[in-house]
Amino acid sequence: MTLEAIRYRSGSLQILNQLLLPHETVYEDIRTVQDGYDAIKSMKVRGAPAIAIVGCLSLGVELRAGAGGDDPVTFIRESLCHLTSARPTAVNMGRAARELMEFSENESMEKSGKPLRDSVIGWIEEMLERDVGDNRKIGNFGAQHILSGVPRDSVTILTHCNTGSLATAGYGTALGVVRSLHSLGRLKRVYCTETRPYNQGARLTAYEAVAEGFPATLITDSMAALTMREKGITAVVVGADRVVANGDTANKIGTYQLAIAAKHHGIPFYVAAPSTSCDLSLESGRHIVIEQRPAEELTSINGVPVAAPGIEVWNPAFDVTPHQLITGGIITELGVFLPSELQAALTGRLTAL
Amino acid sequence: MTLEAIRYRSGSLQILNQLLLPHETVYEDIRTVQDGYDAIKSMKVRGAPAIAIVGCLSLGVELRAGAGGDDPVTFIRESLCHLTSARPTAVNMGRAARELMEFSENESMEKSGKPLRDSVIGWIEEMLERDVGDNRKIGNFGAQHILSGVPRDSVTILTHCNTGSLATAGYGTALGVVRSLHSLGRLKRVYCTETRPYNQGARLTAYEAVAEGFPATLITDSMAALTMREKGITAVVVGADRVVANGDTANKIGTYQLAIAAKHHGIPFYVAAPSTSCDLSLESGRHIVIEQRPAEELTSINGVPVAAPGIEVWNPAFDVTPHQLITGGIITELGVFLPSELQAALTGRLTAL
Repeated sequence: MTLEAIRYRSGSLQILNQLLLPHETVYEDIRTVQDGYDAIKSMKVRGAPAIAIVGCLSLGVELRAGAGGDDPVTFIRESLCHLTSARPTAVNMGRAARELMEFSENESMEKSGKPLRDSVIGWIEEMLERDVGDNRKIGNFGAQHILSGVPRDSVTILTHCNTGSLATAGYGTALGVVRSLHSLGRLKRVYCTETRPYNQGARLTAYEAVAEGFPATLITDSMAALTMREKGITAVVVGADRVVANGDTANKIGTYQLAIAAKHHGIPFYVAAPSTSCDLSLESGRHIVIEQRPAEELTSINGVPVAAPGIEVWNPAFDVTPHQLITGGIITELGVFLPSELQAALTGRLTAL
Repeated sequence: MTLEAIRYRSGSLQILNQLLLPHETVYEDIRTVQDGYDAIKSMKVRGAPAIAIVGCLSLGVELRAGAGGDDPVTFIRESLCHLTSARPTAVNMGRAARELMEFSENESMEKSGKPLRDSVIGWIEEMLERDVGDNRKIGNFGAQHILSGVPRDSVTILTHCNTGSLATAGYGTALGVVRSLHSLGRLKRVYCTETRPYNQGARLTAYEAVAEGFPATLITDSMAALTMREKGITAVVVGADRVVANGDTANKIGTYQLAIAAKHHGIPFYVAAPSTSCDLSLESGRHIVIEQRPAEELTSINGVPVAAPGIEVWNPAFDVTPHQLITGGIITELGVFLPSELQAALTGRLTAL
């Protein structure tokens, strides 16, 4: 089976509420842009690619219901602006918003009313299809690259956070690489970190691994270095919220520490991300704004307090891994690139941000 | 204030049940060796020095009540054997058991009955006093060593797990160094990791920090490397469950990863431990047996499930940090030593194991 985190049929959108996983499987209707914004902000849906897709689809269903009327461009602009503000670190929503806005304005020169709305809806539906196709390519390129170093053996992968079907339109990025290795019969085991403070690894990656039958072991974030030393890790593969021109990568907090540990053990460290997660407008990771999340994410779990009352908390949601530590490469739907090759490989294929 | 985790008055022993912290402050009576064993095994009391002290004191109170009768040596031997088996990685209980057994056998050549029992009780009470005194020395030596590199500035420390009053007879080891820096007016801030899976940092170190008024910030284990890069960490100071002859150190899981990150950032990494935590009988850390703990420690918190059902788990309680990564030194009650100096510094001062 493959988990379906986003259920879209023409004009109808439901998302799997990831806050309730792994204990309850509840799909919720998304009927408006505000529903989409709320689902992203509250993290019912998360993962940079999935955020962009759910955001745009929420606009699509509201357009299908007639929102924007005869002149929908202003409604589209305001909706995209609102959606982009829900989670600022992930680049995909911002890119999709800009591309979709440009498309809408061009179309509006020739169309208005329902024909214009239908064109925009068509663009959004293509985006959904493209994401799954791109993820399959990422999975295959990543698996081949990792296996090229180990001609016959099965491989052991360590991953972080959740980058699977639940974080994308389907298949996954880093977990898509794991999925490809598994379907090739070459996955010995995947170790997934629990990924504090939000436990995406324990809740979501573990849920996907059990559902898909991957041989998988859950560890705490603090066990990663020992796992590298003791468990024969072939490669570390993580996702990305944003990859900038020099290859510096913003991803879930803890990624930087994993990259340091991988370097120490001489284990290749890969970032798996669609080219839409790459932002060539920023030269280096120093310019990436990191989202700070509420203290309660650390101090309580499911509403149960787990820390001493009164303690101060620092809770950055992401960190930036310098390109020097991305020793395996950056896996995209166009191929696997060293950080130093990324800009040239993507130039011309991505519209500038 | 200083927290009192072990309340001992001649013949009466109470321990603070650390499983209930930080939400409830409950002292429980320890009347027998079996009570002591249960408290150690269930982690109501934890921390290598505290385990040894509570174990021996539980024997003391049972001896005071008359256990062992006219010929208590057999009772003492069987009790110590049982107590040592409760948590195998920490060396202190094993050492205390051996030393106390030797003392008891020597005394039994001249004494029996109540005089013999009183001698043994006296030895145990001295051990309690010595632990607090040794911790104060560790705190002062560590603080002076760290401050010698920064003549005027206040310092920022990162620590792991709980090594404070709650882990010792009082004052603490690594947190004792923090306590000394604070009392000198030179502690800018201490960052404490939550220390998954058992959350000793979030529950216990944060509790001590709030109680004592240390400027303190809680982070997840995965944020340590980013904290080192962003927050001006002066030194990382951790405790030890066992330090062996070459300086390799077994300590709470995650210590090894912190040491790698500290090395990457050029930040000195210290181990603070009484000489009783040093085990010169082992040449290197490869010989240390690492305790494996139940999967439930990762998959639920306070009985609330937090991971996907059916996922496999690896849960080593400790890891071994190679001496090469202990770049600051090993802080003992005898002074601060490089790993290469430890064996010579302690030889003759410690009885062989």
